[in-house]
Amino acid sequence: MILYTPAELSAFIDPLKHKGRTVGFVPTMGALHKGHITLAAQALHECSIVVISIFVNPTQFNKPEDLEHYPRTLQADAMLIAQLDPNIIIFAPTARDLYGDRVVAKSYDFGVIATAMEGQFRPGHFDGVGTVVNLLFRAVNPDKAYFGEKDYQQLKVVEKLVEIEALPVQIVPCAIARNPEGLALSSRNARLTASERAQATIIYRMLKEAQSRFASEDIPAIQALLQQTFAQEENMELEYFDIAPVDTLLPSIHKAKNIKYRAFIAVMISGIRLIDNMQLN
Amino acid sequence: MILYTPAELSAFIDPLKHKGRTVGFVPTMGALHKGHITLAAQALHECSIVVISIFVNPTQFNKPEDLEHYPRTLQADAMLIAQLDPNIIIFAPTARDLYGDRVVAKSYDFGVIATAMEGQFRPGHFDGVGTVVNLLFRAVNPDKAYFGEKDYQQLKVVEKLVEIEALPVQIVPCAIARNPEGLALSSRNARLTASERAQATIIYRMLKEAQSRFASEDIPAIQALLQQTFAQEENMELEYFDIAPVDTLLPSIHKAKNIKYRAFIAVMISGIRLIDNMQLN
Repeated sequence: MILYTPAELSAFIDPLKHKGRTVGFVPTMGALHKGHITLAAQALHECSIVVISIFVNPTQFNKPEDLEHYPRTLQADAMLIAQLDPNIIIFAPTARDLYGDRVVAKSYDFGVIATAMEGQFRPGHFDGVGTVVNLLFRAVNPDKAYFGEKDYQQLKVVEKLVEIEALPVQIVPCAIARNPEGLALSSRNARLTASERAQATIIYRMLKEAQSRFASEDIPAIQALLQQTFAQEENMELEYFDIAPVDTLLPSIHKAKNIKYRAFIAVMISGIRLIDNMQLN
Repeated sequence: MILYTPAELSAFIDPLKHKGRTVGFVPTMGALHKGHITLAAQALHECSIVVISIFVNPTQFNKPEDLEHYPRTLQADAMLIAQLDPNIIIFAPTARDLYGDRVVAKSYDFGVIATAMEGQFRPGHFDGVGTVVNLLFRAVNPDKAYFGEKDYQQLKVVEKLVEIEALPVQIVPCAIARNPEGLALSSRNARLTASERAQATIIYRMLKEAQSRFASEDIPAIQALLQQTFAQEENMELEYFDIAPVDTLLPSIHKAKNIKYRAFIAVMISGIRLIDNMQLN
């Protein structure tokens, strides 16, 4: 495959920007699904050049076996992208291309938003995300970059990153894409059996349950219900279920007025980690 | 689809060339088949960036109905290209992009090579080819450009064009791709019915016949055989069958020593024009 180094990508995108083209960027780890394609379609709608990166970033995996099992389907990914638009640029760098000799994460201070939930359960994860997104942004130099709200905390971390690194890019949040049963689309779903995928829809149903109870019940009661429900599920383990204000992402037990809350959940199902979230009010 | 103007294409390819990338170019009119894919595969093998243009060039059609019926299959073309390599750049300009306001052919003097055969039966055709190839070469600025020997006379015209326009590009001739029955692959084959395609294989068989007789028989005898054979075919009309030295492309009736000859044929089958050629010695 024709591959571009970060320097080459800059070299051929920058002149297009000077000619008035706007560059939309969809960073991915490949194993593309309709969620990614929705991001790319929005990028195509708003920008006149679109770059999709496919890079399974080693520094954001806190468990080596998770990195090892992450699905890699470059040829199928390329077909999906070409079907959408054959001139979308696929940027699939090697780790060495992107990082140079030392494939290590930079240490960032993203503040409170990065401390709980994914920040707590995946130590170092957001430093890895921040490092790779910074490197990708510098290679692609996009006007707009598209991130799914499925990784909501990541989205906030990336917004913070843009502030810290003073990058001239607009972050565009995109709604979670779900299958007809409500399961949030994720590359990891490919590793689930059909029955596990059916079982995993309980995540969506319980988020809807939390949403419908949020106005009338207090947070600990909702959390207790969720914990009891997941405790009864076989082969499924609730890692966390938290409700947090969308601006701080600090899990709360009290509801404050005029604050928007979101519920966040992480579940292990047969060793595969799924996350999801939903606006509550 | 993300489309590039000629100026934009130059703007983003030139910096890659400065970074040491070599650019291979496969100009096509779309409706891609394995012949085109073979050209592109060779380009990928020899160059580190590949551009395929898809442009049905109005100025090289001497009959409006031929231009109108020329197959256009951009989405399928894009899929074929992406299967080969998803980062091949597709350059699909509009006529206005490429030509500006006046979509007219420049008048070239390609000398003797352009006078007979296609030059005789398709007046203005090579001026149209030269004009569009010149415009495409200036947009893509390739190091190498790949042309199939199926359009052998065109290949020679393009070599002459490069000389006339002093273009810094190497023309790479590629062997004719054929189906298992010998029919030369052509976008126009898509317009043939299955039985017409079967009938059309007589073109290949008679070229082979000419090749096997060339050492022992003289040219007029071979021509007479071909003419009689095609006269017996229904719905098929022989436009020309000529034998010419590969360097002058002037049809000969005498064989000179130490000269390489090729046989050239053009046939109408149910209103569809097919051409082919074969080295004879």
